[in-house]
Amino acid sequence: MVDMGRIAVDEIKKNVACDIVRRTVPGVKDIPVECKKLIEEEKCDIVMALGMPGKETIDKQCAHEASTGIIIAQLMTNTHIIEVFVHEDEVASLKELAKLVEKRTREHALNAIDIILYPQRLSKMAGTGQRQGGEDRSMIKQNR
Amino acid sequence: MVDMGRIAVDEIKKNVACDIVRRTVPGVKDIPVECKKLIEEEKCDIVMALGMPGKETIDKQCAHEASTGIIIAQLMTNTHIIEVFVHEDEVASLKELAKLVEKRTREHALNAIDIILYPQRLSKMAGTGQRQGGEDRSMIKQNR
Amino acid sequence: MVDMGRIAVDEIKKNVACDIVRRTVPGVKDIPVECKKLIEEEKCDIVMALGMPGKETIDKQCAHEASTGIIIAQLMTNTHIIEVFVHEDEVASLKELAKLVEKRTREHALNAIDIILYPQRLSKMAGTGQRQGGEDRSMIKQNR
Amino acid sequence: MVDMGRIAVDEIKKNVACDIVRRTVPGVKDIPVECKKLIEEEKCDIVMALGMPGKETIDKQCAHEASTGIIIAQLMTNTHIIEVFVHEDEVASLKELAKLVEKRTREHALNAIDIILYPQRLSKMAGTGQRQGGEDRSMIKQNR
Amino acid sequence: MVDMGRIAVDEIKKNVACDIVRRTVPGVKDIPVECKKLIEEEKCDIVMALGMPGKETIDKQCAHEASTGIIIAQLMTNTHIIEVFVHEDEVASLKELAKLVEKRTREHALNAIDIILYPQRLSKMAGTGQRQGGEDRSMIKQNR
Repeated sequence: MVDMGRIAVDEIKKNVACDIVRRTVPGVKDIPVECKKLIEEEKCDIVMALGMPGKETIDKQCAHEASTGIIIAQLMTNTHIIEVFVHEDEVASLKELAKLVEKRTREHALNAIDIILYPQRLSKMAGTGQRQGGEDRSMIKQNR
Repeated sequence: MVDMGRIAVDEIKKNVACDIVRRTVPGVKDIPVECKKLIEEEKCDIVMALGMPGKETIDKQCAHEASTGIIIAQLMTNTHIIEVFVHEDEVASLKELAKLVEKRTREHALNAIDIILYPQRLSKMAGTGQRQGGEDRSMIKQNR
Repeated sequence: MVDMGRIAVDEIKKNVACDIVRRTVPGVKDIPVECKKLIEEEKCDIVMALGMPGKETIDKQCAHEASTGIIIAQLMTNTHIIEVFVHEDEVASLKELAKLVEKRTREHALNAIDIILYPQRLSKMAGTGQRQGGEDRSMIKQNR
Repeated sequence: MVDMGRIAVDEIKKNVACDIVRRTVPGVKDIPVECKKLIEEEKCDIVMALGMPGKETIDKQCAHEASTGIIIAQLMTNTHIIEVFVHEDEVASLKELAKLVEKRTREHALNAIDIILYPQRLSKMAGTGQRQGGEDRSMIKQNR
Repeated sequence: MVDMGRIAVDEIKKNVACDIVRRTVPGVKDIPVECKKLIEEEKCDIVMALGMPGKETIDKQCAHEASTGIIIAQLMTNTHIIEVFVHEDEVASLKELAKLVEKRTREHALNAIDIILYPQRLSKMAGTGQRQGGEDRSMIKQNR
């Protein structure tokens, strides 16, 4: 419903110079093997897996199966695949959905860059309650 | 309940000249290994996995197990397997079911052709809300 | 509760001359690895996995875990394992259960024979609504 | 809550002379890899995986994940791992729980011995409704 | 919401002298492959996987997928990965949550040390009802 790939490419190009290979597959369950092919056949260093699973029970199950496959694909290749799934029922209106898709995709594009180029940036964020595409959360103050 | 394989073969033959190997297995859980054998022993470039899981809880679980296996088979072979499962309870009447099976099978046959021969066609579809065998959905207009 | 192995052996011997290796394991979750050993260590061409999972939630979960393992065992060996699980709560009485076990085991024994010796027989059945050990279903008539 | 390992070792030693390697891990999810290490690094012929998952939803999920891992570990090693999980909520009182743990562990210890030393003993039990640590069930009489 | 890595490092350094490699990833589903890379590329002898999954259904599913992946990563590497997940809804208040995170992380850091350096210490604990970061449970007295 939204061209998430275009948003991701835009955000990556704004931030780093790199080659980007883009593929589109019919459904979320076709994503895991395509990611693995991008890593092994196209020599990609990292992959973003973008999708918008529907709100029916069967859609959620497909997303679960795809997510499990994406994790196995990562383990088989020792390469990160950043899954960016936005579920239709995460927000109440289409307008909010469009905003969420945009925000989450851009934040995860930056995460993908950080994982391979600037891992130390991610370490600084640890435990600060960042959530991609939603409200950030407060740190819990610990009195010890 | 419907000979999905005949529909798929018909659609593929209408669109491309290629060799087709067809196999039938007793149940959905026999599908993953048969797909892998078609890829590794019959040297198929892509496989369509066609099935009509029943509406009972146990049928849905079998379909889930088969889907998970199909994803692993793809990861083990770096080859796409297009799963076309039509669940008996997706529509209200047998007449609608027959129409859905026909439509989804033909659309996925075209997807299978595109994945291996015309991947650029799929990229043009990205984010346009296409759903195989159901009503297409509108794109969300994004004002940025 | 029923010696399914005896029924399967009987049906196979009635139909083909072949060597049969039989193994019994304590529970359903011990089945996947035993099937894999039968294929790899005993050089079996096909395996029938027979079991009667109980009706409690935990029994159903064990059956799900076993089924998932059986699918992975097939993918690791490129060999079919015909799973014949009869769930205690599929029918209302013990008498019906015994009949169902008998019918499903015999039908699947024939399927196992067909898969390795007569795959063309299975193709003829495609889309005709056959269900192992239950009522067969009608084909949907398609007017196109 | 009960030292299941001590019970298992006691039952095995009563019945056969063999070397036993014992390992303790913090939680059920640490079990699969430890079993695999016992097989591959300590050259164990069979492993018993003993655990008492709690009664909360999260505990049941951990047990499910551990069971799935144990099945995969078996498939990767072609070696049996006898899972003996006793769920806290299987019985009503702590006293019954202690009895169940004792009974199931001892019965499974005998199963482990049978699998590697006396597989023919297990075959005799097939279809007789034996359940480890619970009431045995009657065979269904089949009139054919 | 809490910097669990800092707590783990602190507890480990208090108890043993060793090199520690720390990595931060965007979400729980990115954990399995990062653990595997730490083992295979950074030659870590053991890994602690720290995370705080949210309380929504989708968060719980992500945690389940991550846990499954962590178990597979362990099986692929024959190396322990100690998962320390604290679920937001395990306790009623943020204050209790902070205490639980602290307690569980420190206890599991000690477990990690024991697994690779002092496995005999863990064996002494077997069946004594220890739970990381919660109330310990009593042993069941067995009168036999």
